[in-house]
Amino acid sequence: MVLDAAVRVFNRCGYEASSMNDIARATGLSKSSLYHHVASKEELLERALERAFTPLLAVFEEPAALSGSAVERLRVIIDRVTSITLEHVHEVELLQRVKGNTRTEREALRRRQKVDSAVRAIVEEAIRSGDVRTDLDPSLVTRLIFGMSNSVTQWYRADGKLTPQAIARAVSAIVFEGIARRS
Amino acid sequence: MVLDAAVRVFNRCGYEASSMNDIARATGLSKSSLYHHVASKEELLERALERAFTPLLAVFEEPAALSGSAVERLRVIIDRVTSITLEHVHEVELLQRVKGNTRTEREALRRRQKVDSAVRAIVEEAIRSGDVRTDLDPSLVTRLIFGMSNSVTQWYRADGKLTPQAIARAVSAIVFEGIARRS
Repeated sequence: MVLDAAVRVFNRCGYEASSMNDIARATGLSKSSLYHHVASKEELLERALERAFTPLLAVFEEPAALSGSAVERLRVIIDRVTSITLEHVHEVELLQRVKGNTRTEREALRRRQKVDSAVRAIVEEAIRSGDVRTDLDPSLVTRLIFGMSNSVTQWYRADGKLTPQAIARAVSAIVFEGIARRS
Repeated sequence: MVLDAAVRVFNRCGYEASSMNDIARATGLSKSSLYHHVASKEELLERALERAFTPLLAVFEEPAALSGSAVERLRVIIDRVTSITLEHVHEVELLQRVKGNTRTEREALRRRQKVDSAVRAIVEEAIRSGDVRTDLDPSLVTRLIFGMSNSVTQWYRADGKLTPQAIARAVSAIVFEGIARRS
């Protein structure tokens, strides 16, 4: 509850501009009650980002992400990363906006980089094994895939008509096959 | 010059949180000299957004965007929109963050909506004419395409190793054909 309110405040006003006063107001708690729950604003950020990172990093340990060809693993990872982004949409939005001014933010950037590198390595492997086209830069491909999958945080509403499954399926479909009808 | 500085300040601190004082400081002008250039913060926003909207809306009037099959027009539009995003990367970043609290912001949201609707209509036409796959929701496809093309504002540097042409080509390649090698 406190964490949900903190994420809302951070996303609306930016982490830096947000104060413990703002968060107390959003939770309906007094500032001293809020400090009973957490030691600092940075702890709230850390716990909020953990909600995104724990499942995101776990993807890379799943059996389906560890076995099979590179292109099969890439499919699993993109599907799971998109699903987790939708499931934790506010926390992933927060993660996207991290700037790197505090220790927690720098650690988040480091972990985000780790996810990017892991995906880029699999894209490179899939190119070498002949399953992914060779005419595109692997770093650029990785950035554009994340760009598409991250963009759902800007419009997704859990009460909307599109299910997380339909959205994750569309991201995978476009990334792997494109929108043009194959003749 | 003043406009470039204003865009930098708006993107760093957010439009609402930015003051004419911040912008004066960023330009090296006194506040009264700044008011000699522009009447208000909102005028700066309006003129900055115009730098993005003028070329973006002009795309839909280009001959190549008006003739040919729907899928051909879609190709032209995605390529041009991505190129313009790269050319005016800071102004498009600003446009992406518009919230709708002022008349200028609401007008920007209305125009952005107009661009989205125009692209969605062409996606729908391309589905009907059999050139685009029928198993994906046209609104979702439109959002995901813009999501990918807009995401370049988060990492593109004009002095980087990737040219705007290479990036626009990669976006088109993924959107239309996907990354999987066709056998």
